[in-house]
Amino acid sequence: MNATQATATNDEQAIREMVDTWLEASKRHDLTTLLGLLDDDVLFIVPGQEPFGKEEFAAGNGEMKDVRMEAAIDIKEIKVTGEWAWMRSFLKVSFTPTEGDTTKFSGHILTILRKTADGKWVIYRDANFVSPESAK
Amino acid sequence: MNATQATATNDEQAIREMVDTWLEASKRHDLTTLLGLLDDDVLFIVPGQEPFGKEEFAAGNGEMKDVRMEAAIDIKEIKVTGEWAWMRSFLKVSFTPTEGDTTKFSGHILTILRKTADGKWVIYRDANFVSPESAK
Repeated sequence: MNATQATATNDEQAIREMVDTWLEASKRHDLTTLLGLLDDDVLFIVPGQEPFGKEEFAAGNGEMKDVRMEAAIDIKEIKVTGEWAWMRSFLKVSFTPTEGDTTKFSGHILTILRKTADGKWVIYRDANFVSPESAK
Repeated sequence: MNATQATATNDEQAIREMVDTWLEASKRHDLTTLLGLLDDDVLFIVPGQEPFGKEEFAAGNGEMKDVRMEAAIDIKEIKVTGEWAWMRSFLKVSFTPTEGDTTKFSGHILTILRKTADGKWVIYRDANFVSPESAK
């Protein structure tokens, strides 16, 4: 393994750890941690609405604070190329309100990540097909 | 502009020309040209079904041969990073059968492209939210 390959492997591991941090923070509704993993110019691309950024993500997340969330991600592939990377994954997530039934969502995601000047990976673009399982 | 920046600009231009070639070939139902612009391991990620590859793309395209197609793409951004690139775009497309009404589709697309050994750009991953406009 040469130096470039070793860096790519380290970066891939750093991205996997970032994804773990993301899911754990999502379950805790820890919005501060989540926002720290997003580029300031992030865009989420999802079905049926216009792409949205960090501010709209934060607003949407606030509505979830009394909902218990479980999530499992299957990372299908990660490709690191210098200061950029892309990742393909499949996410399963369920939400259970304080009183009420659990709803299940799942879907494929294609994510573009960017390495910041201080060596941290953040989400830059997220093409996210996660949708209610009942609609499939 | 240094040599690296000049190469990135040339690559960006090559990708724009590839997109033009793609749309023109789509209108002509020129499957040979279309397949030549796809990596052998391409995956299309779309709503409501599992990701699919080159063979399934070819099968789906064959069904379209008597349908007139119009298409316009708005390339929102292209980022070239070495032998890889990603592109965000918005596609509008309409289909008119020999006898029948025109149906309109549109949606955002996040595409990963790869530069082949002979310097040609091909589509590697395509997260494609194009869907019927009536459903929106």
